Amino acid sequence: MRSLGIDLGGTHLRAAVFDADHVKLAEHRELVGEPRDPERIAARVAELATQLGADAVGIGIAAMLRDARGTVASSPHLRWRDVPFGQLLAKRLRPKCKVGVYNDVNAIVFGEGVAGAAVGCRDVLGVYVGTGIGGGLIVNGALVEGGSNCAGEIGHTKVVWDDTAMPCACGQRGCVEAYVGGSYVQGRIREELRKGGKGAKSRALELAGSPEAANPGHVDQAAAEGDEWALGLWTELAPLLAVTLGNAVAVLNPERLVLGGGMLGRCPTFYDLVLTTMAVATNGPSFDALTIVQAALGDDAGIVGAASLAARDVSIISM
Amino acid sequence: MRSLGIDLGGTHLRAAVFDADHVKLAEHRELVGEPRDPERIAARVAELATQLGADAVGIGIAAMLRDARGTVASSPHLRWRDVPFGQLLAKRLRPKCKVGVYNDVNAIVFGEGVAGAAVGCRDVLGVYVGTGIGGGLIVNGALVEGGSNCAGEIGHTKVVWDDTAMPCACGQRGCVEAYVGGSYVQGRIREELRKGGKGAKSRALELAGSPEAANPGHVDQAAAEGDEWALGLWTELAPLLAVTLGNAVAVLNPERLVLGGGMLGRCPTFYDLVLTTMAVATNGPSFDALTIVQAALGDDAGIVGAASLAARDVSIISM
Repeated sequence: MRSLGIDLGGTHLRAAVFDADHVKLAEHRELVGEPRDPERIAARVAELATQLGADAVGIGIAAMLRDARGTVASSPHLRWRDVPFGQLLAKRLRPKCKVGVYNDVNAIVFGEGVAGAAVGCRDVLGVYVGTGIGGGLIVNGALVEGGSNCAGEIGHTKVVWDDTAMPCACGQRGCVEAYVGGSYVQGRIREELRKGGKGAKSRALELAGSPEAANPGHVDQAAAEGDEWALGLWTELAPLLAVTLGNAVAVLNPERLVLGGGMLGRCPTFYDLVLTTMAVATNGPSFDALTIVQAALGDDAGIVGAASLAARDVSIISM
Repeated sequence: MRSLGIDLGGTHLRAAVFDADHVKLAEHRELVGEPRDPERIAARVAELATQLGADAVGIGIAAMLRDARGTVASSPHLRWRDVPFGQLLAKRLRPKCKVGVYNDVNAIVFGEGVAGAAVGCRDVLGVYVGTGIGGGLIVNGALVEGGSNCAGEIGHTKVVWDDTAMPCACGQRGCVEAYVGGSYVQGRIREELRKGGKGAKSRALELAGSPEAANPGHVDQAAAEGDEWALGLWTELAPLLAVTLGNAVAVLNPERLVLGGGMLGRCPTFYDLVLTTMAVATNGPSFDALTIVQAALGDDAGIVGAASLAARDVSIISM
């Protein structure tokens, strides 16, 4: 069995073919480019599958899926809406080659499960705090896709539900992503550094040079140096993420929590605060059984995960 | 296959034997009585299994389990702590009869899944709001027990994490159970009706006769009649439960949410408020895919669920 994994993002199409033991046999990377219409990309995937001699193709896509047949409800990155991408692929690839389409974060978490930070674990929660916040679940050894293929949407769990709740790009208010998602954090940092007060005197502003250049990494370093404004912001935001993670852990009782994404990977002070708060805010027996680790596979996680899901016949698309 | 399901609570031991189609062939009920030492109860279960001709025995127990071998970490109802109950049972029943020990709420939710309000559903969240708040999950068609057999502890997810967070019997603070669990609600109602202010003039007090006689049902009726104090309490508490449920739905994306327990079953005004708030506080795509129903099997759910889990070889205890 040679299984091709593809990570289809807004900029790059990255691909690699793996054997049954997740050993990478070949890899390929190209720009998605323009035009990015579904037919053209489906044709490109089919070419790659032929070229690399794949028996199965799994595609992780930065999109909201509507079902387990690879229907893309929307992908802002690809500018797709209501695209039967799975069907387009199946038409070109079946019956010679199996094909499955997966949410990109689900593929990433499954990749960490089969070949990365959660190898050998039966129950895993993976949460990535980058620009936004995404999650994926492995339960009883299998990926959880949910009733309508949107399991793992931990970024849109609510942490504030009074009148102050911040609007989220999803259209609702009070989502944890609207507080701790990297793009929201960055916006808030720049605003506070611009508007004077404690932020204007902060070490973070010195480190960044200007409000426009400031990012969460500067705040993290300032907080590590004891800056009052930076510590204030981090101690406000860390509990929101910690409670979100702890609540999901209480419900799922995973043996491993895999954390990734820039807000955690590049902000060690923030990361430590989140873990400290989790220890007091998570149901005791669930926390006792938990190991928390950082994601290990980087950009390869989604590719090996998608390849592995297709190889295991998860949500394979019929013709 | 004749499978015996047992619900072992603090007061009653209820049992029924089922065929492979969940048809009840015989049932039995007795007081747990005293002494309630594990050896005596294990002997009683073994007698029942012989008497009812069971090939498999599943026991749902009101306890926190430590592992999938039926080790009871603690059961306040039975006054057990660190009891290898599964081993005691296996010694008496194996190899003739398979035996499994399950958390009672897990067995109840699985029962609704195989024969009740969630028949035919692959992904189910069940939440019971009675004296406390318990939950259970079915994912990809299988019960979720979690890494240390305590999945579904939704009652101990946090809804308040500032200095005002209420203490919970679990030892932590701010758990949703400490706000919406029936015994906490009842305590708060009686306190507010006693101490004067709006509560003392409330219709709920008229309905109950005295603060000591007041229960959530009186508050629910008063709220339905437009009583200001009752509506105030319900509109404070309902969002806490609604957000808790909505957040779990965002993470799990179940196709069905089964709700049960007295706080929901006997408080229709509260129930409606919870559902109304869920509609605005739950991740849209997850909510769109969700059906919310009330539990259908009553006291039988745990028995049929435990019987069915054992029949399906879930967490069968080896000798």
